[in-house]
Amino acid sequence: MDLDPTAAWNIEQAPHSDVVISCRARIARNIDGFPFVNRTTDAQNHELLNLSRRMLLGSELADELVWVDLHEATAHDRRLLFERHLISKNHMESKSERAVVISQDETLSIMVNEEDHLRMQVLAPGLQLEKVYHQINHVDDAVEAEIDYAFHDRWGYLTACPTNLGTGIRFSVMLQLPALRMTNEIDRVRRAANDLHLAVRGYHGEGSESAGNFYQISNQVTLGKTEEELLAEFQEAILPRIIEYELHTRKVLVEKNSVLLDDRIHRALAVLRSARMLGTEEAMNLLSRVRLGICLDRVEEINRQIIKQLFLQIQPAHLQQHLGQELSPVEMREARATIVRQMLQ
Amino acid sequence: MDLDPTAAWNIEQAPHSDVVISCRARIARNIDGFPFVNRTTDAQNHELLNLSRRMLLGSELADELVWVDLHEATAHDRRLLFERHLISKNHMESKSERAVVISQDETLSIMVNEEDHLRMQVLAPGLQLEKVYHQINHVDDAVEAEIDYAFHDRWGYLTACPTNLGTGIRFSVMLQLPALRMTNEIDRVRRAANDLHLAVRGYHGEGSESAGNFYQISNQVTLGKTEEELLAEFQEAILPRIIEYELHTRKVLVEKNSVLLDDRIHRALAVLRSARMLGTEEAMNLLSRVRLGICLDRVEEINRQIIKQLFLQIQPAHLQQHLGQELSPVEMREARATIVRQMLQ
Repeated sequence: MDLDPTAAWNIEQAPHSDVVISCRARIARNIDGFPFVNRTTDAQNHELLNLSRRMLLGSELADELVWVDLHEATAHDRRLLFERHLISKNHMESKSERAVVISQDETLSIMVNEEDHLRMQVLAPGLQLEKVYHQINHVDDAVEAEIDYAFHDRWGYLTACPTNLGTGIRFSVMLQLPALRMTNEIDRVRRAANDLHLAVRGYHGEGSESAGNFYQISNQVTLGKTEEELLAEFQEAILPRIIEYELHTRKVLVEKNSVLLDDRIHRALAVLRSARMLGTEEAMNLLSRVRLGICLDRVEEINRQIIKQLFLQIQPAHLQQHLGQELSPVEMREARATIVRQMLQ
Repeated sequence: MDLDPTAAWNIEQAPHSDVVISCRARIARNIDGFPFVNRTTDAQNHELLNLSRRMLLGSELADELVWVDLHEATAHDRRLLFERHLISKNHMESKSERAVVISQDETLSIMVNEEDHLRMQVLAPGLQLEKVYHQINHVDDAVEAEIDYAFHDRWGYLTACPTNLGTGIRFSVMLQLPALRMTNEIDRVRRAANDLHLAVRGYHGEGSESAGNFYQISNQVTLGKTEEELLAEFQEAILPRIIEYELHTRKVLVEKNSVLLDDRIHRALAVLRSARMLGTEEAMNLLSRVRLGICLDRVEEINRQIIKQLFLQIQPAHLQQHLGQELSPVEMREARATIVRQMLQ
């Protein structure tokens, strides 16, 4: 598997990219006439997979799609897909017959036999929710032209988990909030998000910690509102407030606490440029601080795109991919430090 | 008070200076006819001070001595003397009439009215115990020519604390043991020292932590042995083993774990060169690692003398002295980072 660290969804130049790393629209759909995946037999999984393959590779999307049978893929390849946010942790680790279908540019991925029969996502850099909404709708229509979805007149699209019922759509953004973290204001964001029924997760989604000051924020309730209402609420009411809060906190740091700010930024850059061993989480935290330094014009000699690539390249499977060999945990830490040193000189 | 960071006792070029920062001989003496300091009245303290001043400034040592009345000195000056190891923490903090007498080059200091009437020390860089023993004997003779010491035929020189009874002499060395600390072997040294009735303390003596990987090791028992026996045991039997243990551990690190070693050393140097705020203890720990790097030829562009000076100059009172003004804790951390950055560029 050959994957590009400068994939379309990972470019730096994008709207609101100071704070918003990427955005995503995801829909959950099930195929009429089959039980949900948690109730299917092996034979039904096999049948669902064959059906989905025929259907997707026969649809108008077919030209740009790559089909990957995950139960036949190596653990390394599955990990690589996970690190690129193309499959969930659950889908990486599951044992049953399952697949992922990816567009060449990786902005579209469709997990087959994850929690739902089809989990389709469109990813874009920065804050471009209208765009990903438009694209996921297009994908949804193309798929629905080929197959009947499980649908209930009153409940809408039927999904394995009731929180996805209704439109089955979920919007999410990956934010980087280093200033709110540094000033311990992040808990206020968490509480506010909770009150607004938003989920706050880490870099790798459900259950992952907030290494690198990444916070993935998504709507939780999809029932009782139209897709447009969900999008409008998320995009116009909620996100601008969080983005503004982070930007304001950065401004206050610059104005009132620039020594502390520069201390954190320059220490981080110095350690990244000199360490001989680096863990993933430490590296992500340090990279986040350097990225903040670049955003605030306090570090001038480093290109932000390099930092964005590094967030991906320091992940374990990407490191092994880059070096073309399996690495022990110790070798991994050394290789990570080496690539970071090289890229930041 | 004007004190030189490159004082005679703080030069880097000295025997075994890879491991031994400095060495010291100290004797405790009391003047016949007075109670110990913990029993004296204010009037007796006053009398002891006058007597000591007349006696010391009338002795053959007088030419090189500077007398400092500590009860009249500023808190800043007392702290400065403490940071230079010329007075103890106790002598810095006490309220009663007391003094310290220092030679111009600061290798000799005599505390008056500390725990004993006279606590005299000779300090030298590196491992030069014969030399400091010879010098302290000379001082002792010069003082004894002027005054009668409290002496008991059976117990020897009488001292306030029984552990100083007998010869009243204590030898100590300030070691820097970064490799033993890094490999967690330091506890074995502590246990061995304990079994050999040695005291292990930190940079600032009794009760201070081992910031900067400094370990001050001294003999505990002074009763029942001659000064020569104490010196021989300390110098020939005990110290070579500890020094060898540290050097061996450094060698093993270089041979078996050079990546870890370089990681620690280069991170330390990078942080020292880039931090905008530095606490004393953190700075000492980082300087210790850089010094190890220089000793092991893994850092080439920095002079060891600079590091040795910095250990002194980053101490709070020295920082304020250097800048000629009082500093708040925050200003102190900033000033420390600034001086370290400047000196290590």
